[in-house]
Amino acid sequence: MKSILIIGAGRSATTLIDYLVENAKAHHWQLTIADLNVAAFAEKFLGVDFVNTQVLNITHKEAREAAINNADLVISMLPAHMHVVVAQDCIRMKKHMVTASYISAEMGALHEKAKQAGVVIMNEIGVDPGIDHLSAMKVIDEIRDEGGKMLLFESFTGGLISPECVKDNPWEYKFTWNPRNVVLAGAGGAVKFKQEGLYKYIPYHQVFRRTEIIEIEGYGRFEGYANRDSLMYRNDYGLNDIPTIYRGTLRKPGFCRAWDVFVKLGMTDDSYTLENSAQMTFRDFTNTFLAYSLSDSVELKMMHYLQIPQDSEIMEKLMWLGIFDKTPIPLENASPAQILQYILEKKWTLNKDDIDMIVMHHKFGYQINGEKKMLESSMVAKGKSSVHTAMARTVGLPVAITAKLILTGKIVTPGVHRPITKEIYLPVLKELEEHGIVFTEKEIPYLGY
Amino acid sequence: MKSILIIGAGRSATTLIDYLVENAKAHHWQLTIADLNVAAFAEKFLGVDFVNTQVLNITHKEAREAAINNADLVISMLPAHMHVVVAQDCIRMKKHMVTASYISAEMGALHEKAKQAGVVIMNEIGVDPGIDHLSAMKVIDEIRDEGGKMLLFESFTGGLISPECVKDNPWEYKFTWNPRNVVLAGAGGAVKFKQEGLYKYIPYHQVFRRTEIIEIEGYGRFEGYANRDSLMYRNDYGLNDIPTIYRGTLRKPGFCRAWDVFVKLGMTDDSYTLENSAQMTFRDFTNTFLAYSLSDSVELKMMHYLQIPQDSEIMEKLMWLGIFDKTPIPLENASPAQILQYILEKKWTLNKDDIDMIVMHHKFGYQINGEKKMLESSMVAKGKSSVHTAMARTVGLPVAITAKLILTGKIVTPGVHRPITKEIYLPVLKELEEHGIVFTEKEIPYLGY
Repeated sequence: MKSILIIGAGRSATTLIDYLVENAKAHHWQLTIADLNVAAFAEKFLGVDFVNTQVLNITHKEAREAAINNADLVISMLPAHMHVVVAQDCIRMKKHMVTASYISAEMGALHEKAKQAGVVIMNEIGVDPGIDHLSAMKVIDEIRDEGGKMLLFESFTGGLISPECVKDNPWEYKFTWNPRNVVLAGAGGAVKFKQEGLYKYIPYHQVFRRTEIIEIEGYGRFEGYANRDSLMYRNDYGLNDIPTIYRGTLRKPGFCRAWDVFVKLGMTDDSYTLENSAQMTFRDFTNTFLAYSLSDSVELKMMHYLQIPQDSEIMEKLMWLGIFDKTPIPLENASPAQILQYILEKKWTLNKDDIDMIVMHHKFGYQINGEKKMLESSMVAKGKSSVHTAMARTVGLPVAITAKLILTGKIVTPGVHRPITKEIYLPVLKELEEHGIVFTEKEIPYLGY
Repeated sequence: MKSILIIGAGRSATTLIDYLVENAKAHHWQLTIADLNVAAFAEKFLGVDFVNTQVLNITHKEAREAAINNADLVISMLPAHMHVVVAQDCIRMKKHMVTASYISAEMGALHEKAKQAGVVIMNEIGVDPGIDHLSAMKVIDEIRDEGGKMLLFESFTGGLISPECVKDNPWEYKFTWNPRNVVLAGAGGAVKFKQEGLYKYIPYHQVFRRTEIIEIEGYGRFEGYANRDSLMYRNDYGLNDIPTIYRGTLRKPGFCRAWDVFVKLGMTDDSYTLENSAQMTFRDFTNTFLAYSLSDSVELKMMHYLQIPQDSEIMEKLMWLGIFDKTPIPLENASPAQILQYILEKKWTLNKDDIDMIVMHHKFGYQINGEKKMLESSMVAKGKSSVHTAMARTVGLPVAITAKLILTGKIVTPGVHRPITKEIYLPVLKELEEHGIVFTEKEIPYLGY
């Protein structure tokens, strides 16, 4: 009998827990689902075999240590900054651990200790980061195994809504993940990437004007904007000298041009608060970023300031969101970004009938036997319901499968890792395929820049 | 015999020291000029009556305390962050102090102690801050004394080159003050001001597109861009409820539109360093902010990206600076802002023949007896040479005059101050006039927004 402790059972954990419950009997697992607040979901597991629920405040050292000590493997779905304290316990008590979060500097620093303790601390095994690592490294290794030399790697992921749910929403977008992260996406520093051997930098306020169009068979056109630091995985991927590397986020075409209005106006700024936000309407909020005029409308001032044609789709998108409406803002001392999030949540919150969609797309350029070649690899996953979302599935399944592979002795290399080796990507991708998460690869003519 | 200690004798101290030397005999002053490196200027004062020079490292506590203890008044022309340690000594030893720098939070916190010690710690008594406070408060107090109610206050200052030195320089600008501060001007946060009762915010990346044209009789048109925080002196000026308040920086028209190119490209970013700056040319640097292209020129890519017409003055300004030239950049691991400064310094460093010019302009709107009125007040000061610059004169004279007024018992109110009361602005403005620094006031028709 092996024991699995799952800490943090939020919205993104539905598929994860379902998978583990379904596999518990066959693998002789005892599951403990621990959360600060189990009331919301404990009932669901009442009387379910092999499953306990437990109230756990992980800042209480003794309770946390006791819970971890009872487990063979810990899955942490906590907010990213809380993983390290759990990882330290796991290493000390020689327990394996799985998270879907980025490896922080503190987490990375535990690598040698984890190796010495002989435990696997696997991170970044959700969707992005996660499935992107698995699917990219599989192709990159195949190219290298054949003797190819990588020339170009581009990778895009987007969390969107499924086309049948778009209806009258001109943005073809809703929040399928943390809204605050979406509002602040790209903020805080220059974007870095490399094209044909040249380093390229884009300041935040231009990121949404430097997009690339991606076509995915059966799903149409998407646009990608650059992520903050495309250079960071070069070493792990063995691509230190690659001439072109670019990572981005996918939206439907036209999204970025309209989002750019918020950036240009200053609405995504989270560094200061407005003096009188609770006395403002959406219209006042928009007007606060425009010059004063006794007679001109907020709409006209904005169109003139940002050179937006009156009949453009940008105006349609902005009007649809209500940024010119006289709706009150009930937030005291709010930052522009907080107010923008409030406005967006009115329209961009998933309904019960909404289905989300994860889209991932890689491009690999390489040279082999003197010839330049290019491969595309794409994956589209749709949600099954507003509870079993594509986001929950593409994050939860790889985490759960990895936990199984560790407990069954298939993944054994100790240390703090991200999933970039054959040991993990082959079996996880194989099982993801069985769950319908499939990459379609296609050779296309080589296109450089 | 009174003793004055001047700490820090850099370029901006020429006029200050000349004034004190000229007045030393009549006022029975003994001057001590102390600097980390006096070799450069000590010779000039060899055998000059009433003047000593002294090597002083102000981080050496004993030496610093001894020097301050010998003085009746200390003038600190050190970098701003070094004033506080001097001020603490001055308060403990009951010495007066004068600086031209902004009151930092640490400096402000010494107010009560300075009051108790009975010493005057006068700050912000250079040109901006300094002469702007004096000249604005004089008019604001006059309006209030007449029973007027302030409706609008706008204040602009610019350090420029004198028109006769412009020659072929299409920017009509050179560095007359710390180049780094000019490159980073406006960076780091949103601009805040108030127009007709409404708070207004501009993100950094739009500041140079939201300018105002100012006309000054005899000197033509200037453009003003907004300073970071126009709201900060409201309390000190007694303008807490004023509907319109705006502070800005003056340049010649067209400057901001062209400078905006650097901002839009990301060249003023000081938050990261370029991977290979020492291997780059000016042209490579410009190209690093543009998309890759095998065939298109850097010039065309930039004109297309930022929608700059080929025949515009913006391109003339950029070409003149050489940002498309293949000149090497000899800076390792430099930030974009550091490289931009290097490029600008090649063209914007004052020659021996160059004369600088300080331009200050205030607008005061007010209501009196049911009538709305408006006053303008302008001052233009030109340098006498590349050593006796307008900057050195407009910073040095008010500092020196204030030192004299404190030692002669005309300024007596103890505490940490900025020059906003009659006690200081009346006598300092009067003596500045004698030195040719004169404000011209003019009533104009009331213009709101």
